[in-house]
Amino acid sequence: MRFRKDTIIGVGLIGGSIGLALKKRRLAKEVVGVFRRRSTLTKAMRRRAVDHGTFDLERGVSGADMVIIATNVGTIPGFARRAARFMKEGSILTDVGSVKEDIVNKIEGFLPEGVSFVGAHPMAGGEKASVAFASAGLFKGTNVILTSTKDTDKGALRKVSKFWLSLGARISIMDPRTHDKKVSMVSHLPHMAAVALCLAQEKDGLVYAANGFRDTTRIASSDPAMWLDILRDNREFSIRALDKLIVDLNDIRMALARKGFRRLLANLKKAKSIRDGV
Amino acid sequence: MRFRKDTIIGVGLIGGSIGLALKKRRLAKEVVGVFRRRSTLTKAMRRRAVDHGTFDLERGVSGADMVIIATNVGTIPGFARRAARFMKEGSILTDVGSVKEDIVNKIEGFLPEGVSFVGAHPMAGGEKASVAFASAGLFKGTNVILTSTKDTDKGALRKVSKFWLSLGARISIMDPRTHDKKVSMVSHLPHMAAVALCLAQEKDGLVYAANGFRDTTRIASSDPAMWLDILRDNREFSIRALDKLIVDLNDIRMALARKGFRRLLANLKKAKSIRDGV
Repeated sequence: MRFRKDTIIGVGLIGGSIGLALKKRRLAKEVVGVFRRRSTLTKAMRRRAVDHGTFDLERGVSGADMVIIATNVGTIPGFARRAARFMKEGSILTDVGSVKEDIVNKIEGFLPEGVSFVGAHPMAGGEKASVAFASAGLFKGTNVILTSTKDTDKGALRKVSKFWLSLGARISIMDPRTHDKKVSMVSHLPHMAAVALCLAQEKDGLVYAANGFRDTTRIASSDPAMWLDILRDNREFSIRALDKLIVDLNDIRMALARKGFRRLLANLKKAKSIRDGV
Repeated sequence: MRFRKDTIIGVGLIGGSIGLALKKRRLAKEVVGVFRRRSTLTKAMRRRAVDHGTFDLERGVSGADMVIIATNVGTIPGFARRAARFMKEGSILTDVGSVKEDIVNKIEGFLPEGVSFVGAHPMAGGEKASVAFASAGLFKGTNVILTSTKDTDKGALRKVSKFWLSLGARISIMDPRTHDKKVSMVSHLPHMAAVALCLAQEKDGLVYAANGFRDTTRIASSDPAMWLDILRDNREFSIRALDKLIVDLNDIRMALARKGFRRLLANLKKAKSIRDGV
């Protein structure tokens, strides 16, 4: 599969890595980036993450075979609405947002005839969210969840699947709500736990933080604005996930309070077997 | 500083790394390991973590200038009691346990005349707790907390400090209870959070676990028996630490439930600044 022109709106860690991978694997003749800030454009051009950069959304997406929105979750529907108006007949719009139900519902509500939308969530990234950390290999072995609804065009879904497979990713397809539920547990909940672990600390104790603390809280260094968007968009499942975690923390607390050390050991063993299986 | 004979009781990741470091830096003429299992003795000898290995505690500690107990927290007082009887006049007993109040109280209660005890906690390690992962450099830059009580011999404290400094560690000295409180927050709480995060998961969702989940839960792969001992010995502060974490998780939950996104963003920002400062 090969595109004549692919456009990436938002060239950060994910968008930049898509650009680098498209160029490296010669999947697109031309990769265009749409930017808001000159500093990001300069960085992206220096990294050769895109062939051309523009601040003009219309010019950026016109004639593109595929437009990938890789901005923060909260701004994806707005960019989608504006971009879709200028996209050509038969082109595909997709995104990389970490939450899907809200985004997919909104975009399917205003998508013009002739443009197909497929929601996507590549489960890669990290706490360093800049094109400076982008790499062509970021998606190798990465799980990418694609969404399918009653409105999803099967041909577009196939093309977006092939696109991610050719970047080395593993594909799963599910409805947006199932996606949001699953990632609330494996991604959004660990994030909230890391944040709470930091908030709970006393300042003068942190000098004794070792690798255990570092690993457990690494993701709390991520961009707060980005995560606000994610948690807000996945509010319902975030709350449910928190409730589950609090139940399990209380279970450990109970075992300690009642000196139920057999139960505590059983929990430690169960957690180890779950973690070892990942 | 140089010892004629140092004895390590329990040659795992920590004990083995002490042995390797003592040999590499030529701090002890003879390093003896006391073992319970032949398989560990074989592994330790193959790694050259000790010069000699024995299953006989009396023979192992006789004539030693310093005896380091590096077994699981729950077994340290028992080994200390048995070892101290055979230790020579003027020798030093120390340990590497992750909890201090219970251990120090117990050992100071039965320590014979002529043997000094200094509690120590090198904050190194990881989820791979075997001599197979031991390394001479494990303590470079590591925080080592030494305990000081009204019974602590100042000369012995000075010697144990020098010992750890010569292994590349950074030293802090505090009373055992302060130690237990501080490490409950930066070490034991992250562990319990990682365990609860694993317990909360649904089996069919774990296929989507990415780096965030992996980092946050890595320490849940640690030895359950070792951690049961730690949490049991530091029961009071573990419960208090859990309560603090649950308060902060509830704060995030409240912000989400009430759509208090300004408060949520403030928490995300505060957590990032705390984590970035580590």
